[in-house]
Amino acid sequence: MIISRRAVIGASAASLFEANGASVLRVDGARLRGDLEALSVFGRPSGGTFADGVSRVGYSPSDVAGRRFVMDAMEKAGARPRLDAAGNIFCRRAGLEDSLPPVLFGSHIDSVPSGGNFDGDLGVLSSLEVLRVLQAAGLRTRRPLEVVVWACEEATFNGNSLNGSRVVAGKMKPGELDEVSSGVKKADAIRAIGGDPARIETARMRPGAFHAYLELHIEQGGILDRERIPIGVVDGIVCVDRYSVVAEGFANHAGTTPMADRRDALVAASQLVLAVREIVMAEQGGQVGTVGHLEVTPNAANIIPGLVKMNIELRDLSTAKLQRLASRIRERAAKITADTRVRIAIDPLMHHESALAAASVQRVIEDQARMLELRYRHLPSGAGHDAQMMATLGPMGMIFVPSIGGISHSPKEVTSWDDCARGANVLLHAVLALAA
Amino acid sequence: MIISRRAVIGASAASLFEANGASVLRVDGARLRGDLEALSVFGRPSGGTFADGVSRVGYSPSDVAGRRFVMDAMEKAGARPRLDAAGNIFCRRAGLEDSLPPVLFGSHIDSVPSGGNFDGDLGVLSSLEVLRVLQAAGLRTRRPLEVVVWACEEATFNGNSLNGSRVVAGKMKPGELDEVSSGVKKADAIRAIGGDPARIETARMRPGAFHAYLELHIEQGGILDRERIPIGVVDGIVCVDRYSVVAEGFANHAGTTPMADRRDALVAASQLVLAVREIVMAEQGGQVGTVGHLEVTPNAANIIPGLVKMNIELRDLSTAKLQRLASRIRERAAKITADTRVRIAIDPLMHHESALAAASVQRVIEDQARMLELRYRHLPSGAGHDAQMMATLGPMGMIFVPSIGGISHSPKEVTSWDDCARGANVLLHAVLALAA
Repeated sequence: MIISRRAVIGASAASLFEANGASVLRVDGARLRGDLEALSVFGRPSGGTFADGVSRVGYSPSDVAGRRFVMDAMEKAGARPRLDAAGNIFCRRAGLEDSLPPVLFGSHIDSVPSGGNFDGDLGVLSSLEVLRVLQAAGLRTRRPLEVVVWACEEATFNGNSLNGSRVVAGKMKPGELDEVSSGVKKADAIRAIGGDPARIETARMRPGAFHAYLELHIEQGGILDRERIPIGVVDGIVCVDRYSVVAEGFANHAGTTPMADRRDALVAASQLVLAVREIVMAEQGGQVGTVGHLEVTPNAANIIPGLVKMNIELRDLSTAKLQRLASRIRERAAKITADTRVRIAIDPLMHHESALAAASVQRVIEDQARMLELRYRHLPSGAGHDAQMMATLGPMGMIFVPSIGGISHSPKEVTSWDDCARGANVLLHAVLALAA
Repeated sequence: MIISRRAVIGASAASLFEANGASVLRVDGARLRGDLEALSVFGRPSGGTFADGVSRVGYSPSDVAGRRFVMDAMEKAGARPRLDAAGNIFCRRAGLEDSLPPVLFGSHIDSVPSGGNFDGDLGVLSSLEVLRVLQAAGLRTRRPLEVVVWACEEATFNGNSLNGSRVVAGKMKPGELDEVSSGVKKADAIRAIGGDPARIETARMRPGAFHAYLELHIEQGGILDRERIPIGVVDGIVCVDRYSVVAEGFANHAGTTPMADRRDALVAASQLVLAVREIVMAEQGGQVGTVGHLEVTPNAANIIPGLVKMNIELRDLSTAKLQRLASRIRERAAKITADTRVRIAIDPLMHHESALAAASVQRVIEDQARMLELRYRHLPSGAGHDAQMMATLGPMGMIFVPSIGGISHSPKEVTSWDDCARGANVLLHAVLALAA
């Protein structure tokens, strides 16, 4: 309670703590649920319900519509949204000492194709809820607050993820604006959400531009749910290495080409898919490896596949382990080429370093969970988050809430409404504590 | 020569055989080449050349444009095209005894995606060339002639092939007109090429409706090319069994789901792709098995694949052998399901019986090859053809010409211009012999 008390400046303590001091400022869980349900219609499968999940792919028309919804909600909460050149949405609430670096908090609203309604959305709408609670309570914090909605967090543009926050962290790749995905140039995609690719560098933030960055997110794994713990204090985000693979055989007629004469790219790719799993599982530890994306050309029942493009993704806290696994996968690919006469090229597509949460921010989160009488535990994040980009600029912390059954990136992704509200309350008080 | 002589009725023998009897009626090889080059622009990759092949998928706008080109060429050859209700193009040349059943000959002009410029096109344009040669020579055959361009021969509508000829043979499946492929209903696809789905039954032919059916086609395998033999006399078309496979696992986050907890549909599908190859190759013989089509859902680098849809295609002259192979594949799929917790459903999608060429028509083809002093050999067809549908209605024969390197269903599909003309000359004289 002490921390929350300290966070509040220029407001009546009575509005935060009732007479007996047993009750503290809380988010409106029903309003938060209403927001999550309202946002879920943008990108919902036609004829579906909330339970059918969402395909709100970054930069798509449903992403644009969802962002419009969020910006309208910001306006209604008395905070004017502004866009940076990368298309990230910011919304500032002045502080009593407004020249201090702000407390920055938020998440994203874009989803993977056929994703769920909590990944990202919960963090954005809880941040909005924090603004509303402060507005309703007439509270002004010492430091300014800044809510952010990051552009295209998911790996849906040529396998590139953290698209908005990477610009802010100055980690855009050379030529990235000219990249084309599904026929759309990245510069045009950014323009479609209101960004300004010609001035993209203006979106960059300097280290120290914020006092701390906070993000509430669903765990997307099953640890909190299995252990019945409502709050996770993230101690770091794993390293992610992603590779693009091209297997090039020779397309030919499936009826007239003898089995022994074939150079079937899908046969080679299938061997590689199984090799990735086998190599990743051969070592002890929590590392994971996935082939999530695979495309066959020409992809007709009566043609031997001539070309397969796929991605390999490896994740672990240890970069060295990932490099060791990748080198074993390359060795295996060379053997597959020798066996099948299908050439295999493996090229790095993305590398996200592991990112540690600041010990000071972790402590603030722990304190608020204790104050709210919520059990918590520390855990790493197996998923990447915009928070890892912010960790390169200043102190970062993340709050996790349970994913039922550990399910995520799926329409079946669910977090209980009570856990959503619990996470939002921890966010609210962590923001207040950090802004004090 | 005797057979060609007999074929000609009502024309001066001098127009066919020059004074010394050493020279016979011939197609114009340069004109045939010009036609093949002219047709190749419809569906050509943008910025490409003839060597870049063609994507003239049945029922597509480029198919419509190519069909228009062929119908215009028919008009110019003095023969009026007509469409049946399935969208097949027919073009009749009256005979001296015009009430006799016609000699029917032709092929198709639709291609697989990223296919070549000879598969189908050669048979259609050679048939057109036969009409021109007869018109230029002022020859009239005893029987009427009928050239046909079959609609959508390739397996490009939901994996269904021989779409036009199956209607004519009365082998359309129940409900097939209501099937949807890439968002297009089959009835609408047929309408797009000028067919009339409401009257589809009128396209059916009775057995005996034609005197014989002839089709000139590239081999699409490497036998003739390897043995340097210009003419293949087809003795039959293999049986084709095609299955649709659905592997259903569970889509989840690729970073947060431990390897042991996954139900990865692509891992299971990869095992099945390799099992098909292994099972097909475990037996002696010329049978082939292919997974040419595979689609991953949701197909993002950071999501464990929840669903894979694919096709399995098996071909052999023996139906019994194909059933034995399919049953082994099903057994293996059950084992994969037990290992991976990914459900696998395998359903029959298509079954084409093997079809024998009529001995009498084979003999006519052999005779013309000998008369033209062209070496020939007998061989089976590993590929399906509209001819197999015609074999259910009357005597059928096919003439093959060499595919360089056995390459087909690829932009690299090539038959030498000389071999194209040789095949067209055999077609010309076989038509004349059968029409006598």
